[in-house]
This record gives sequence, C-alpha cells and structure tokens, in this order.
Amino acid sequence: MLNDTILNNTMLKTEYKKLKEKYCNELYSLQIDMMKAKIPMAIIVEGWGTAGKGKIISQIIDPLDPRYYRVYSKGSTCQQTVPFLKQYVEKMPCRDKLSIFDSCWYEYAFWNESTITKKSTIESINSIERQFSDDGCVIVKLFLHISKSEQKKRLQLIEKNENYINEYDNFINKHYNDFLEIVNNAIENTNKEYARWNVISGYDIYSATISVYEIIINAMKSALSKKDAEKTTIPVNYKDSDKRFPLIKMPLLKDIDPNVSVDENKYKDKLKQLQSKLSKRQEFLFKNQIPMVLVFEGWDAAGKGGSIKRVTSCLDPRDYTVIPISSPSSIELSHHYLWRFWKELPQQNKITIFDRSWYGRVMVERIEGFCDKNRWQMAYSEINEFEHEITKSGIILIKFWLHISPDEQLTRFKNRENNPAKQWKITDEDWRNRKKWDEYEIAVNDMLQKTSTKFAPWNIIECNNKKYGRLKILKTIIKEIDDHI
Amino acid sequence: MLNDTILNNTMLKTEYKKLKEKYCNELYSLQIDMMKAKIPMAIIVEGWGTAGKGKIISQIIDPLDPRYYRVYSKGSTCQQTVPFLKQYVEKMPCRDKLSIFDSCWYEYAFWNESTITKKSTIESINSIERQFSDDGCVIVKLFLHISKSEQKKRLQLIEKNENYINEYDNFINKHYNDFLEIVNNAIENTNKEYARWNVISGYDIYSATISVYEIIINAMKSALSKKDAEKTTIPVNYKDSDKRFPLIKMPLLKDIDPNVSVDENKYKDKLKQLQSKLSKRQEFLFKNQIPMVLVFEGWDAAGKGGSIKRVTSCLDPRDYTVIPISSPSSIELSHHYLWRFWKELPQQNKITIFDRSWYGRVMVERIEGFCDKNRWQMAYSEINEFEHEITKSGIILIKFWLHISPDEQLTRFKNRENNPAKQWKITDEDWRNRKKWDEYEIAVNDMLQKTSTKFAPWNIIECNNKKYGRLKILKTIIKEIDDHI
Repeated sequence: MLNDTILNNTMLKTEYKKLKEKYCNELYSLQIDMMKAKIPMAIIVEGWGTAGKGKIISQIIDPLDPRYYRVYSKGSTCQQTVPFLKQYVEKMPCRDKLSIFDSCWYEYAFWNESTITKKSTIESINSIERQFSDDGCVIVKLFLHISKSEQKKRLQLIEKNENYINEYDNFINKHYNDFLEIVNNAIENTNKEYARWNVISGYDIYSATISVYEIIINAMKSALSKKDAEKTTIPVNYKDSDKRFPLIKMPLLKDIDPNVSVDENKYKDKLKQLQSKLSKRQEFLFKNQIPMVLVFEGWDAAGKGGSIKRVTSCLDPRDYTVIPISSPSSIELSHHYLWRFWKELPQQNKITIFDRSWYGRVMVERIEGFCDKNRWQMAYSEINEFEHEITKSGIILIKFWLHISPDEQLTRFKNRENNPAKQWKITDEDWRNRKKWDEYEIAVNDMLQKTSTKFAPWNIIECNNKKYGRLKILKTIIKEIDDHI
Repeated sequence: MLNDTILNNTMLKTEYKKLKEKYCNELYSLQIDMMKAKIPMAIIVEGWGTAGKGKIISQIIDPLDPRYYRVYSKGSTCQQTVPFLKQYVEKMPCRDKLSIFDSCWYEYAFWNESTITKKSTIESINSIERQFSDDGCVIVKLFLHISKSEQKKRLQLIEKNENYINEYDNFINKHYNDFLEIVNNAIENTNKEYARWNVISGYDIYSATISVYEIIINAMKSALSKKDAEKTTIPVNYKDSDKRFPLIKMPLLKDIDPNVSVDENKYKDKLKQLQSKLSKRQEFLFKNQIPMVLVFEGWDAAGKGGSIKRVTSCLDPRDYTVIPISSPSSIELSHHYLWRFWKELPQQNKITIFDRSWYGRVMVERIEGFCDKNRWQMAYSEINEFEHEITKSGIILIKFWLHISPDEQLTRFKNRENNPAKQWKITDEDWRNRKKWDEYEIAVNDMLQKTSTKFAPWNIIECNNKKYGRLKILKTIIKEIDDHI
C-alpha cells in the first residue's frame, strides 16, 4: 500500500554522505560476490512520473561495476510484444548479471490503459516472477511515491523550466486517485514472498537513496546465504499451482494403436485438398494479424520432419520460421530454460514451428538427469503457465505428439542405416534413446497428462502410417484455426 | 540490367521434375559440406512485387535441412534502424549457417522513397557486402523480373480473387518505368565481383527454380573449392579503399606530453559547470531524437572508468548504456567481428558508451596474433566504413584515446596492488600488456593515423593528471554536440 506517512522521511546531508560511502563499498563487494555465486538479480524501479526514478537508478548503479549490470528503460511503442511479458523476459539477467528495469511488466499493471483485464495481467506477473524466483533470480521491487499535489508541482516546474509537456504524466496526475487505486490494488496483489514491494518516498533523495541501498544490500545478503544452503526441495511457491489450469484427461500411450491407415489411392488428392485449405487459412491469419505456434514432439523417426514439410510447403516461406531445437548453447543455459522459447514467439502475423520444444525439460532433461528432479517436476506448471500466456495473448498454439510403435521405429532406423541418403538421420544417440523406450514412455505419459490444458491440449497423431499422420495433422491445424476464428 | 529477353524462358514439367530431383540432392549435400567447412552464405531474393519471391524462397529451402538456414522476411516499419544496415547485419549468418533474405538492404536501394540519396545507399551496400565477402561469407543475389503489364495483371488477379489490395505494389506498378530506371542503376552499381546479380524471369516457375538452383550450386561449389586454397593475402576488393575517406593528420604519441595539470582549487567548480552543461545537451539530444556513441580507448589504468563515470553521472541512466568490451563470446566469434558492435548501436534518443571497442581488432588482436595480419590490416578500412555508416545515419560519434606515460602507469599499477579496494583492478594480464608497451605504441600510432577521419576524428586526452583528462573529455563532448546541432 502506498503509505503517505513515509513521505515525510528526510535525512541530513552529512549523515547521508557517511552512510552512502559505507553502503557503496558494501554494494560493490556484494555485487562481485553475487557474480561469483552466479546469482542473477532484477531490480524493478517503479513510481509516479517525476518521482525520481532516473535519479534512484543513477544512485543504484553508482557503486556498481558496469560489466555486470544493464539498465533497461521504457521501450518505445515499437517494442510492444505478444505476450506483453516477452519484451521483459528477453531482458532478464543471465546467471551472473543484474538487470535494472525502469518499470518492467508493471507498465501494464499500473499505467497501461489498453491492458484487457488487470486481474489477468496480475496473474501473468505473479507467475513469471515466481518462475524467475524459483530459477534463482533475486527480484527487488521499488515504488517511488509522491502525492498528487507534489507531482503536479513538479510537472509545472518541468513545463516552465524545460518548456516540455509530458502529456501522459499530466493525464495520470489529473486522474491520480483512480491510478492510486489501481496501483494500490496491483501492489497488494503482487506483493509475494518471493518478490516483495518496497515503497519509498520520492521527496527526499537522500533518505530514498539510503533506503534503496539497504533494501538491495539485504536482498543480496539473503540470497548469498541461501545459496550456501542450496535448495533441494521443490520451492514452496510451486504448491497447488496446477489447480489453476483444468486438465483434459488423456489416454495412455499403451492404449493407443498407432496403426491407422489411409486409402493410398486417395492420399494425394486428399493432401492437396487439405494443403489448399490450410493455405487459405494462413492468408486469413496473415491479414488479421494472428500469429500461430505449432509444436512438434514425438518419438525419434516418427516423422516430424516430413510432417512439418507437408505443412510448410503450402505456406509462404516469408511468414513462418522453423525452429529446430537441439541442446542449448552456453548463453541459453545461463538463462531460465524457457528464455530461448520466449525469444522465438511469433509476432504480428507470423508462424513459428518448433521441431521439438520446451518439452525437452520433462523428457530428455528428466531422463538424462540434465536437471534436478524438483526442477522437471516444477516444469509442468511452468509450461502450463507459459502456454497460458501464449494463448491468452491471442497466439494460436497447437501441439502434436507423433506416436509410433517400437517395432515401426526399428524398421525405420534400419531403413535409414541401409539408405546412403538417409544415413545422416540416424545416430548413436537415436539407438541409445531407443533403449530407454520404457523410461520415455513414462515421461511422455506424464507430460500428456499434466500439460493437456483446455487452452493447449495435446493432439496425439498415430504415425505408423506416415501418410495418415500427415493428413491428420493438416486436418487438426485447419480445425483449430476454424475454431479460433 | 533487367533484360526482357529472359522473360520468355520456359521449361517443360517433365524436364523440370528430372532436374529438380537431381539438383535437390546436390543442394542438400552441398549444404552439409558448407556447414562442415564453416562457410556462411546469404541469399538475397529481390524482385518486383508479385514476381514470385515467396515461391522461389519455398523452392530454395525445399531440399535444405532446417537446422542450418533461416528465412528473414521484410520487417514491419517498427524494425527500421539507424544505420539502415543495422537490422540486416544483425541477421547475417554465423559461420555454419545460411540466411535467406526477402529483400534485405536492397529495400532501401530499390523501393524505399525515404532514402536520402541513392548514391550513398549504394556505397553503404557495396561496403557491407565487400566486408562480409572478405569475411568469408558467400553472397548470392537474385532479382525476379516481370514486365509492367504482367505485374498489373497479377495485381488485378489478387484483388479479384483475394479481395486484397497491395497499395505499395500498385504504386510501384503505376511508376514502373521510374522504378525500372532506379533498379537498373542500382543493380549496375552493386554488381560486384564478390556479389554478382542474377536476373531471373518471374514468368515460369519451372525455369526460374532450375536457374536459381544452378546459381546456388555453383556458388557453393566455388566457395568450397576456394576454401581449400584458403586466402592468405589481402583480398583484392580491399585495395585503395582508404582514398574514399580523407584522413586527419594525427601527432605521434611520443610527441604528446601527457602531463597537463589543472588548477586543483577550481576543479570541482569547473567539473560541476561542465556536467550541468552536458546534462542540458543530453536533454536536447533526447528531445530531438539524436543518438550518440562515445568510444573510450586508452592505456590500461589511463582512467577510462573514472572518466566514463564523470560523463554518466550527469546523464539520465535510462538514456544511456555502458558496454564494457572484453573478449568475444563463442557466438560473437562465429560472426563478423563488427557484428557485436552493430548490435549495440543506439537507437532513437539513446547513448551508447563503449568501454573499449572495435579497435581491439587493431590493438590486442594484432599484437596477440588473434587474427591474421591481412585481417587487421583490412580492419582500418572496415572500421572507417563502419564509422562512416554510423555518422552518416545521424548518430553523433566521439572517440577518445586516453594517454598516460609508462611511468604514470607503473605508479598507478603499484597503487592498485597496495590498495585492497583496488586490487581487483590489476591483473597479470595488465603486467603482461605493460611489457609490450612499445608494440602497443606502434599499434596505437597506426590506429590514430589510419582511422582519424573527418567524420570520426580521434581525440587524444592527456591523462597523467586524471582531473585534467576528465574536464577535457567533458569539454570535447559538449563541443562536438554543439558543432553537430
């Protein structure tokens, strides 16, 4: 809550100077410790226009080594993204860095009139802050508070001295009390254990600076001491999060017969017909600025590549991108595991096709032990939240699991080995994965059960007959687009 | 030249099918060879609207493995950058990849009315294509040609069938002959040995596809055979390029006395006064949307950090970014060495401060042998071209060389070693570099002589007295801004 009693906080210059020097030394060495301990940190500086956000950011960076932080200021309108979180997620710090945000996602919770519903925005923010916190990022949130009359005074002063009118700040000042209610409500609902709000008086820069230094120092010290203890259990924040997203009951793989065939004589005509339909649907999406994400997962040799080709061959290549997902680069590894997927989400009227996806977390990373058990167990919720953001923003999301039998896989592997043109497609890794079929089957069943939400259900495609699979995929995409529009 | 006789090229479907299969197999394996040989490739697909660029791109990617290419389509207006090349340079392929551009920088040479002068645009394009070619990138340029009447027919058909009017294409069709002259002129002037144009008929997709396949296959084969020979001499393209940019005669370091002092009593007042002036200048730049780049180079311990702090402490932290340059990451290494600097160029009304910069190429990389002699020798021209692009686009660029004597450096190194709070600032590398003072002095003198252009002269700052240096830097920035506006 924005508390007006704090507005009277002041500090004498002599006291300020003494404390500042002490805290600056401390901040400098804590920053190096954070960097060495590979703890990322995000400082979000919010507040009323003219409350002094710029000055506070100057004070924050004053003692810091510029190699380890970066200040992100309010973007131009050009940088608005779908989902709105995307632009900020991309700027979140990697393991040994500090990001300082002038406003961040609270732009949408506090000031942006075009946000569809404030409640949904707040849910998005809570989810993403919890995810980053669970991933080890320290989140410090500051709100610089001044009264309506003080803001008005400052705006008039700027107008007089600089001959500059900030129309939006003037608009906010005029409706100060309405905004006050919105901000108070948003602060109350985003003041979580893992990302607490700190309201600071914007009157006296001395006392504000010292308060901010103390907050950051405490946050760093607390993170460094926790790091020593190292979490091994699922963070508390995670509990019960599944209940938010009703799940669709999915069959187990063993109950699915991947042998469904197609009338060979009619295949070509049917394919052409569906591709022509899809082509028209894409034109519609393009003209109506609706982006789309297609996710292809499935057994090795299930036919992902061939299916993607049947989809893309009827699309304009300038409107889609195929993103083949392999093991993450060192930069990707130093971020939240969903970071590299956020970055690739399609904008405006584009289509992104993921050849494998974020589900690697609960399949290969789970089975090969690339991440802790609690990490992949958390991932189901994180992925549901991520997909909720995607669909909520208006992007169409369609997920496919391409299913074949172990026998069919063996036939295809051998076929690849015996065909010189296809040998590159089969590697030792494929054979190793095949040996773990049973483990993978458990993981896939878990994944299908836990991430088949109403807004992003899985489509299981029977693929022992490739042609059948391709037709079903095309039909599914067409149907999903039709349902959407 | 757009030659109308090619417009009659046609091909029978049977012949097309046979050739297509053959070429697709060849393209697929050549692509893998290119990837293995780490040869990047950029294919630029240009042409009249409705000439079939989308279809041709579809055909190009048809045989390719999606892991190794990416299609970049025309950006929205939001993505327009200064310099205009920036948006495309960022998308140029890394060592083992292929970028396919729907238009690329020719958007500005052919179709963009707002380009200030076509001549200057063409110079920019020639420079950047030569730079990428010299860096090993294969550039294939295709122009899909159709006649005015054919384009009109197609536009009318789209309007009728899809109820969609492409206003810009209609505008171009109306002024087809004017654009024809512009395109012909631009093609003629950018048809260089290292990046030849290929004009293809947009009438018959069969013959066009086969032509494009043949062009790409030849380009790949030629690059692969050249790779074996490996260039060891300076590429021919480089010769004489210096003459384009008149140089300012700079003194040798030995003729500069870094001992200039300042009236200690007046320093504080003078500093405050200059900072307040600079602060006003930044407001002006901000409001007038003028970006600025500051480059800080200098001897180790010359005072770059402290000087940058005196500059930034009077700026709004939301409007500038300090980019500390250290050794490149693996991703940066897999691109042209200027790529990581292009990416950081400030947009709109921002300031980028480089703490060390692209001059690493002709200093540390030269002296430590991180790049071949011909590579760093080429860099002077490349850097002049880069800086020419920066300044031409309206960005203010100011470069500083912070100069101290070897004795002063020794004093500062020892001081750092003896001061616990400053020990982190001194490393073994600093001592190693110090031993190479004479080599560095030669490199710095070369750099000052060869990259002090009229549009981006070096400012040598005498820094044995830090305070004098700081004041001179502030004065220089203020003067440069005043000269600019």
